[in-house]
Amino acid sequence: MPEKLILVTNDDGITAKGIAALVQVAAPFGRVVVVAPDKPQSAMGHAMTISQPLRLVRTDIFGDIEAYTCSGTPVDCVKLAIDKVLHRKPDLCLSGINHGSNAAINVIYSGTMSAAMEASLDRIPAIGFSSLDYKHDADMSVAAHYAQQIICSALEKGLPSYNLLNVNIPKLPADQIKGIKMCRQAAAKWVENYDERIDPQGRKYYWLTGEFIAEENSEETDLWALDNGYVSVVPVQHDLTAYDDLAFLRQNW
Amino acid sequence: MPEKLILVTNDDGITAKGIAALVQVAAPFGRVVVVAPDKPQSAMGHAMTISQPLRLVRTDIFGDIEAYTCSGTPVDCVKLAIDKVLHRKPDLCLSGINHGSNAAINVIYSGTMSAAMEASLDRIPAIGFSSLDYKHDADMSVAAHYAQQIICSALEKGLPSYNLLNVNIPKLPADQIKGIKMCRQAAAKWVENYDERIDPQGRKYYWLTGEFIAEENSEETDLWALDNGYVSVVPVQHDLTAYDDLAFLRQNW
Repeated sequence: MPEKLILVTNDDGITAKGIAALVQVAAPFGRVVVVAPDKPQSAMGHAMTISQPLRLVRTDIFGDIEAYTCSGTPVDCVKLAIDKVLHRKPDLCLSGINHGSNAAINVIYSGTMSAAMEASLDRIPAIGFSSLDYKHDADMSVAAHYAQQIICSALEKGLPSYNLLNVNIPKLPADQIKGIKMCRQAAAKWVENYDERIDPQGRKYYWLTGEFIAEENSEETDLWALDNGYVSVVPVQHDLTAYDDLAFLRQNW
Repeated sequence: MPEKLILVTNDDGITAKGIAALVQVAAPFGRVVVVAPDKPQSAMGHAMTISQPLRLVRTDIFGDIEAYTCSGTPVDCVKLAIDKVLHRKPDLCLSGINHGSNAAINVIYSGTMSAAMEASLDRIPAIGFSSLDYKHDADMSVAAHYAQQIICSALEKGLPSYNLLNVNIPKLPADQIKGIKMCRQAAAKWVENYDERIDPQGRKYYWLTGEFIAEENSEETDLWALDNGYVSVVPVQHDLTAYDDLAFLRQNW
């Protein structure tokens, strides 16, 4: 079997602890190439750069492993990697390990998951990993252990049709994690409360702050799994059609 | 009945022709407040600004209609509008009229649709409008006509459960448009081909270029509708769980 080509990226930037952990996990599975943002790109969602040119700079941050910083978003990293670095589709795209949860509705805002989704749109099997420990010096060893196990399963058993998984790992010691649970995305939302301040010129400015509101607590959801000591795995799709709503519109409009 | 409060935003920026057209369409339906980006924010997806503060500046660009420019993304505009301008949820959020298609997979990349989705996450009925004419001086009169009609229907008949519609209007004279068609999102993707250049310092840089590839031509899809002279309406959801894939994982992993 030819060696697998594995693209690793993230949204916290190439110097984050999480991507270093993921590179280490990925290395035994094939030839790893890293293309990651040169600065933090959290909450970039599926943004891509269209009105600025992009830069790609080789770095030896991971020793022998081929790695580049990219001046764009996580989605840019994946697009540019395929077109200008790998010159072909990789066999697998891994994104993360994110510092902070991408469970529930966070999947929509997450640069980590958008990078993985971008790969999956091109039918590349892709997995986004996130640790619920958002601190920059988070211990990624437990998350790395489960990432390794899930990559094994993905390669052995295959990914389902949309080729995309959203994996979140609780912030718990290894011996308190009960296992891996397949879940659906929990209904949840963020409620904003901007912090209003006055600059030295007397003008207002606003910092985003917000509160995460879980809107359900079903055992089928990723939030329940994480709250109860499981690693959550949600298979993700990119067909946003609300089919029940389509039936409503066809009948009532 | 109390007057409806209508938030209007977009991703092309507050000076775009499309938002001026949408403000005119919206005005007879209630009290319109505009909070729109102070610069183009196309392809921003669901990005939001977390590491910079935001600015909000009052403008009289729409005469008597209360309007503000926001220094952030389309999603920021909606969040900030609700928290700091309206001080309550609006009754309706309208986004656009975008200069360019947001049909098929473009819904993922679109700032226009992300703004509308952000509102719908908060259970605010929201509609994103896009004209297939991407030019900055596009004639928005046909798109405005259909926007008016669809807003009427939304207010009279209600939006379905996810409260979110993706409306695209073909670039055709009014008499060549066959009507409005309820659709699902077509399978499609972008294939990138970055334009590599050398800067005056001898370093490479890359401009995004790409080709849109439709992956199907079913009569049920938005792409078919638009190709065949219909205005496409796709109801959009934010539950990204791939339920069939979840069943696969539960059985096979």
